[in-house]
Amino acid sequence: MTTTFITEHRLKNIKMLILDIDGVLTDGRIYLLPDGNEVKVFNTLDGHGIKMLQRAGVEVAVISGRSSPAAEHRMQQLGVQHYYSGVTNKIAAFKELLKKTHITAEECAYVGDDLPDLPIMNEVGFCAAPPNACEAVLHSAHFITRKGGGEGAVREICDFIIAAQNMDTEPFLA
Amino acid sequence: MTTTFITEHRLKNIKMLILDIDGVLTDGRIYLLPDGNEVKVFNTLDGHGIKMLQRAGVEVAVISGRSSPAAEHRMQQLGVQHYYSGVTNKIAAFKELLKKTHITAEECAYVGDDLPDLPIMNEVGFCAAPPNACEAVLHSAHFITRKGGGEGAVREICDFIIAAQNMDTEPFLA
Amino acid sequence: MTTTFITEHRLKNIKMLILDIDGVLTDGRIYLLPDGNEVKVFNTLDGHGIKMLQRAGVEVAVISGRSSPAAEHRMQQLGVQHYYSGVTNKIAAFKELLKKTHITAEECAYVGDDLPDLPIMNEVGFCAAPPNACEAVLHSAHFITRKGGGEGAVREICDFIIAAQNMDTEPFLA
Amino acid sequence: MTTTFITEHRLKNIKMLILDIDGVLTDGRIYLLPDGNEVKVFNTLDGHGIKMLQRAGVEVAVISGRSSPAAEHRMQQLGVQHYYSGVTNKIAAFKELLKKTHITAEECAYVGDDLPDLPIMNEVGFCAAPPNACEAVLHSAHFITRKGGGEGAVREICDFIIAAQNMDTEPFLA
Repeated sequence: MTTTFITEHRLKNIKMLILDIDGVLTDGRIYLLPDGNEVKVFNTLDGHGIKMLQRAGVEVAVISGRSSPAAEHRMQQLGVQHYYSGVTNKIAAFKELLKKTHITAEECAYVGDDLPDLPIMNEVGFCAAPPNACEAVLHSAHFITRKGGGEGAVREICDFIIAAQNMDTEPFLA
Repeated sequence: MTTTFITEHRLKNIKMLILDIDGVLTDGRIYLLPDGNEVKVFNTLDGHGIKMLQRAGVEVAVISGRSSPAAEHRMQQLGVQHYYSGVTNKIAAFKELLKKTHITAEECAYVGDDLPDLPIMNEVGFCAAPPNACEAVLHSAHFITRKGGGEGAVREICDFIIAAQNMDTEPFLA
Repeated sequence: MTTTFITEHRLKNIKMLILDIDGVLTDGRIYLLPDGNEVKVFNTLDGHGIKMLQRAGVEVAVISGRSSPAAEHRMQQLGVQHYYSGVTNKIAAFKELLKKTHITAEECAYVGDDLPDLPIMNEVGFCAAPPNACEAVLHSAHFITRKGGGEGAVREICDFIIAAQNMDTEPFLA
Repeated sequence: MTTTFITEHRLKNIKMLILDIDGVLTDGRIYLLPDGNEVKVFNTLDGHGIKMLQRAGVEVAVISGRSSPAAEHRMQQLGVQHYYSGVTNKIAAFKELLKKTHITAEECAYVGDDLPDLPIMNEVGFCAAPPNACEAVLHSAHFITRKGGGEGAVREICDFIIAAQNMDTEPFLA
């Protein structure tokens, strides 16, 4: 379970990790309560990975086509400051994000799982997909994670960026 | 993971996709809250597939033996206009649906997982089952999906219909 | 996926199916809400199996070491009349059940997954366990189901009893 | 599925089992309700294992980096008296626990899944990880359980301790 040389090269210059929610930070399941509200199911492994990246100075952004109070709570817990929800045009949100952060597309990593993610995946320096992604996205990804969305797929990418950039994770051990 | 020639032929003329809920749009799990109400667990992949089919002009109908406020909410989110819930006789609902839409049984695709689905499966032009279906249904299906119910099984069928009919999915990429 | 000759022989005379809940009718997960109440997660495949057995004249009983309003609701939905909850001594409940129904231990099938189930498993005519059961129970079972608890394990046993006794399932097809 | 000689040797003198919650007693999934509260998902197999150990005189402690009312309820159900929640420095909580119980690090077993668990894992007599743990923890563990966190991983360790110390589990059979 190691990235190829080319993949590592792409990861060396990443300054921002951009994530989809459903199917990436979750396993794609939509838990609907009787009142129509949603339970959102995230993963602690991903949470730790995101926090480590942030402390190491990498920006973490989330662009989701859906929106829910539960997702809002998780983004706050993780301190994700660039959070775009209910987005119908992801590439527009992506371009706004680049402008705001002064980071280039080449310096971004993206993890997505479905067709609305493809336009961003075609622009960024590195893009990955979990194995539960739709066919077209699996074919376009530079890397397919071992773990599924919501099961640690995002953590894998965080760990790869941390390793490729020789970041110090000592502070998280105590 | 491609459909055989015969399967593709069957998919070419499909004008309506009819779906069961439990075990097909969900993994068959019944999440019961203390008050007896249900949490229903759907999947975003299926949701995108259903919306793509609808925009491409294919009707999507749902016939379920059970009923719940949560399922009602999901059907509204997906814009499913032909929704039959709490159905004890599925074949009767199916016949009413054909009459209402002026679509023939041969032009329908159906995805089911349990014995009450068999009578419809024996009538339609194409029928599929997820691998979690009961034995009898697995034996009667024209096609068994790779992904399980609630894990993208329905999306697979949507993608097959879209591919077999050369539908344009460009509008979903931006 | 067929039962051996000996197993089929054991199933021919079954007049009552007795089930554990956690790990058998569920996958063993305890979903705790903030107020300490539980969400219980059952499966539609099992539900259909239980109803088919009941209509065919086989008694279905449930003996659980835990209790919850959600489980109570499911037992009512399924029309399970012999429901023992919060049971600390399962063998005592089992003996009371035999007395009440005038059915012998030899005519009972039991599905369990953990140590408190062993004393009943040692008495009945046929006992099964899902693959998620603890080691000792896996070793004592006459049969280990293919599907896990809460994923259709109970349905498998229902289907085996129905097949072994040549019961008519036609009424469930329409 | 048996422990090696060295592992069994390490288990012979264990007087306290210390557990992480997320990823160990759960599968790492964070179920967020619309109000930001959590549903915590435990497993009955683990519950039985913990109770058996306690009755056999082994202390059971839990140290978690997070905190929630649902986890609080489960700890009460299981009679876990040493429960540290919302812990940012796990090694400090561990040292306080040793002082309070007059048990040495060598007499402790620990199950963890992520980086904050490593400092304790490096101190105890026996440490295990579920297969869903992060890479660094998998490399540091004396033993990797067969079942995942929240799916019976903790029960495996309980059963190993019970077997290694020849404890009597008869009282749990009736």
